[in-house]
Amino acid sequence: MNYVIDHMKIVPESESRLSFNDRSYHFGDGVYEVVRIYDQTPFQLDEHWDRLFQSAKKLDMNVSFTAEELTTLTYDLIKANQVIDGALYIQVSRGATPRNHLYSREETPVVTGFTMNAPASKQEEGISAWVTDDMRWLRCDIKTVNLLGNVMAKREAADADCQEAILHREGTVTEGSSSNLFLVNNGTLYTHPATNLILNGITRQLVIQLAKHAGYSVMEEPFPKDVLDHAEEAFITSTTSEVTPITEFKGQISATMPIGPVTRHLQTLFKEAIQKEQNLASKEAPETAE
Amino acid sequence: MNYVIDHMKIVPESESRLSFNDRSYHFGDGVYEVVRIYDQTPFQLDEHWDRLFQSAKKLDMNVSFTAEELTTLTYDLIKANQVIDGALYIQVSRGATPRNHLYSREETPVVTGFTMNAPASKQEEGISAWVTDDMRWLRCDIKTVNLLGNVMAKREAADADCQEAILHREGTVTEGSSSNLFLVNNGTLYTHPATNLILNGITRQLVIQLAKHAGYSVMEEPFPKDVLDHAEEAFITSTTSEVTPITEFKGQISATMPIGPVTRHLQTLFKEAIQKEQNLASKEAPETAE
Repeated sequence: MNYVIDHMKIVPESESRLSFNDRSYHFGDGVYEVVRIYDQTPFQLDEHWDRLFQSAKKLDMNVSFTAEELTTLTYDLIKANQVIDGALYIQVSRGATPRNHLYSREETPVVTGFTMNAPASKQEEGISAWVTDDMRWLRCDIKTVNLLGNVMAKREAADADCQEAILHREGTVTEGSSSNLFLVNNGTLYTHPATNLILNGITRQLVIQLAKHAGYSVMEEPFPKDVLDHAEEAFITSTTSEVTPITEFKGQISATMPIGPVTRHLQTLFKEAIQKEQNLASKEAPETAE
Repeated sequence: MNYVIDHMKIVPESESRLSFNDRSYHFGDGVYEVVRIYDQTPFQLDEHWDRLFQSAKKLDMNVSFTAEELTTLTYDLIKANQVIDGALYIQVSRGATPRNHLYSREETPVVTGFTMNAPASKQEEGISAWVTDDMRWLRCDIKTVNLLGNVMAKREAADADCQEAILHREGTVTEGSSSNLFLVNNGTLYTHPATNLILNGITRQLVIQLAKHAGYSVMEEPFPKDVLDHAEEAFITSTTSEVTPITEFKGQISATMPIGPVTRHLQTLFKEAIQKEQNLASKEAPETAE
């Protein structure tokens, strides 16, 4: 039986029920997180909860639960679904009240979630990336379910046999449709700064930290899409794709590149970071409800 | 008992059920329409279905139902809920399949809907409008449920005791958060053209047609927000607000204006158009299922 989180409780999926009035359904008025699970253990859970609460705050959402409650739910769901390697999806909708653009600050948030299998990895062989226009709104820093701009770009990419879309806003590269983008030139990493135009990925932040610690320079500054043409190395980061090399840009840019030593080095450092946190977590995992 | 449309069937609201996997819930991947009901009769139904199908097409959605089926459902729901004056809300979600940014073209769309009471009218006294930044994506011509930019602007307006937010993109006025904007100067109407930056309202289109027929010039061209400062008249149009005068701009613009003769004239013409269509519809209403 598959279990899900519904209104902060763990229930069989067959008993879960979304309200007909849910604001996520009518307005995309919700925020979410995807957390990777390695060997039954959620990775960077505190960082994901921090961002979830930040997203809710930026949207002026009433939040009536604590990070500790979410953590308990997470471990309980992992246990209920016997997840070894996979991911947790958790969404907070502003509330479920009769449809009205104007929300009330008294709404009761609705928390739902489920677990997924581990995604297929392209980390060994790399991916092709489709370069296209960024059509999204101006608050991409908030992790909301208003994702149509991302969804349409992802389809466009797939139609060109690419696994990710790389977006640019009037010529300035921002990020992937569900990932952050890094370029490497002369041993220096380049990525868009964490402004309102990108989602500041948890994996992005960790990779920057790991890279700096390993002695690489990291330039967080906007760059034009023509730069993609002569990148020595390129890779994306995200919770589910970790550090995945790009071997080809298609669409508005045409370029191929090898999987380089810096990308491989960061993949190794990332795997070590997972291992390190798991060793810590195994000593600190909270008691789960039976 | 309140009835709703759920998966193209009319069911008691208590029996309705949204799927945990619905793409409208996870991505805002759905389109919708709001149709006004006057004296048990839906207004401009064909125009709304045309736009609904256009929205679906622009989003590359698989549509497996016809306008005729939607019309039958509409009349059946009006009858079931005994709606005299009110509105119909109808939403088409791309599908309900396990969460994945990448949609399939084989998804089965999910149609849901409900009726609402007639909204409170501000057509006599007019409204105050809050002028603020347009943060939305670049496909506002598609009537999707990715509405967070609209929702946040509406809240901002309400916090300043305004009933609507008027949006501008880098200084160019686009539209209201859930309406279109018209200015009147020297007997000429001004409104943003129907580009990717606004939703081409069904009421907007009818008002333009009525105005032209009555001999007014209508300029569909972009104008800067400073123009709001010296508008002789201003009004919004939408399915639920019809032709509602603006008496005050607040926020980034500060200006007051009387409710002028052109606005009042268009209100009269609009009411006549409703009456005219109702007279026709009463002769043409389809048989409803018992």
